[in-house]
Amino acid sequence: MYDLIIIGMGISGISASIYAKRAGMKVLLLEGSAPGGTVNQISEIENYPGINRISGPDFAYNLFEEVNKLGIEYKLEKVTDVIIDDSKKVKTTKNVYEAKNLLIASGRRPKRLGLEREEEFLGKGISTCALCDGALYKNSDIAVIGGGSSALSEALYLSNIVNKIYLIHRREEFRGEDILIEEVKKRKNIELILKNEVTKLKIEDDTLKGIILKDGKEIDVKGIFIYVGFIPNTDFLENTDIKMEDGYILVNENHETNIKGVYASGDVTKKDIYQIVNAASEGAEAVVYMTR
Amino acid sequence: MYDLIIIGMGISGISASIYAKRAGMKVLLLEGSAPGGTVNQISEIENYPGINRISGPDFAYNLFEEVNKLGIEYKLEKVTDVIIDDSKKVKTTKNVYEAKNLLIASGRRPKRLGLEREEEFLGKGISTCALCDGALYKNSDIAVIGGGSSALSEALYLSNIVNKIYLIHRREEFRGEDILIEEVKKRKNIELILKNEVTKLKIEDDTLKGIILKDGKEIDVKGIFIYVGFIPNTDFLENTDIKMEDGYILVNENHETNIKGVYASGDVTKKDIYQIVNAASEGAEAVVYMTR
Repeated sequence: MYDLIIIGMGISGISASIYAKRAGMKVLLLEGSAPGGTVNQISEIENYPGINRISGPDFAYNLFEEVNKLGIEYKLEKVTDVIIDDSKKVKTTKNVYEAKNLLIASGRRPKRLGLEREEEFLGKGISTCALCDGALYKNSDIAVIGGGSSALSEALYLSNIVNKIYLIHRREEFRGEDILIEEVKKRKNIELILKNEVTKLKIEDDTLKGIILKDGKEIDVKGIFIYVGFIPNTDFLENTDIKMEDGYILVNENHETNIKGVYASGDVTKKDIYQIVNAASEGAEAVVYMTR
Repeated sequence: MYDLIIIGMGISGISASIYAKRAGMKVLLLEGSAPGGTVNQISEIENYPGINRISGPDFAYNLFEEVNKLGIEYKLEKVTDVIIDDSKKVKTTKNVYEAKNLLIASGRRPKRLGLEREEEFLGKGISTCALCDGALYKNSDIAVIGGGSSALSEALYLSNIVNKIYLIHRREEFRGEDILIEEVKKRKNIELILKNEVTKLKIEDDTLKGIILKDGKEIDVKGIFIYVGFIPNTDFLENTDIKMEDGYILVNENHETNIKGVYASGDVTKKDIYQIVNAASEGAEAVVYMTR
């Protein structure tokens, strides 16, 4: 029986685990993918106070190193189900673990565009990770879809690698940070296509050749990077009565869900601001409230 | 006219300035002491997620470097008064600055014990900064007063320098993190004196010789390190109607005070958790809410 099981080894879960371990709790971290979570897919982190500039994978490595240095127990097993009765039971692909308290810090994943045959071409021309796949498009033409800070910063990263970027956004104004918008406008190899949308993939001989826009325009590109929002990772909670909105977990100011002993923090929760430093703070807060 | 003046260059103010600058705001940071604020006085930071272990001054240096890299305007001038009418006017020892919005991130300072002649011996035997003054007591006997995480972690730091530490706490149980309590108990040169208090300084020939406890016991020490809580830095706000409790500024979940356009974040606000990562997060949040 653990004092606390934390689902997710992103920044919020790892932050929580540091505080839990230092508070003397018996804690278990569970992660179905790579330690570090979503930060692994960020090319450059420039707004985490105290670290001037770091690549996402380096940041993830530092987080994982903290887990190891503190001797925090973790299992790289995907959580498949959560059963809540007197205790909290967490089923993974391999085991069942039991705890007094549960912190859900499972984050969120990039949304797709919802185009015909889109899933089929993921990893074969379509990507949601510039850092992972950018090098495949050296000196090629690509499209980046989206208008928030993720789309802008990843377009900047890609513009140093590829020949040309078509940055396609359905609105006239970008939603991202000013510093990013300004920089994007300065880059000579980024062409802005605003108030337009991708409606179809251009596929020939089972190969992705480009995109077709709402206005009928065809653009030939070798790669398409999609940054159009996120879907919270809460599928494994279907057998619980945890309250959600649009798939995001609802929590109070102490990061408690509607179920006693079940907390949530970071990007999986419904909130106004989804920044790395906020997710880190919330993980720490959840544990401090838990121990009071 | 600035878009935003931030009072305080601690972690919360600097975090806010990074977000403000990246959002394209004309922002000014004001600080009457050293950039970095209270972190300058912490010997080791071990629970800021993403940084395994760093000295307080190194952390402060990184923060200051971020300010400089982003070209954020700052003035090392002490704020003496704030006048709020249509705009927000901030008076320093040298100038008056004006802004549309104000973020108060002035933090808090260590409390004293309130003993007779205590102020007189500050820096001459009495300290609130182990990192600043620890080396003065190499191989000497000292007292550390307090029972929270600050007292414990700074006692651990000092125990590697001094001969012996009397760790004096008025309660039977420590309030600090378990990991720190355990480590303190392991150190052979730390003697715990619990359920006791310092009532008097032992002074001979105008030199601090030791302390006298509630039970009359005298202990000879060369230095006394005090970690018994904090006082928020809000003296310069006396000409405003900003609502406070015990000197701490009251804010809502958007970090707004009761006055439109005046925000506060970090340790100067009334809240449950005073951790570095929370202060960083709150500074970022305040600016994001401000720009919406």
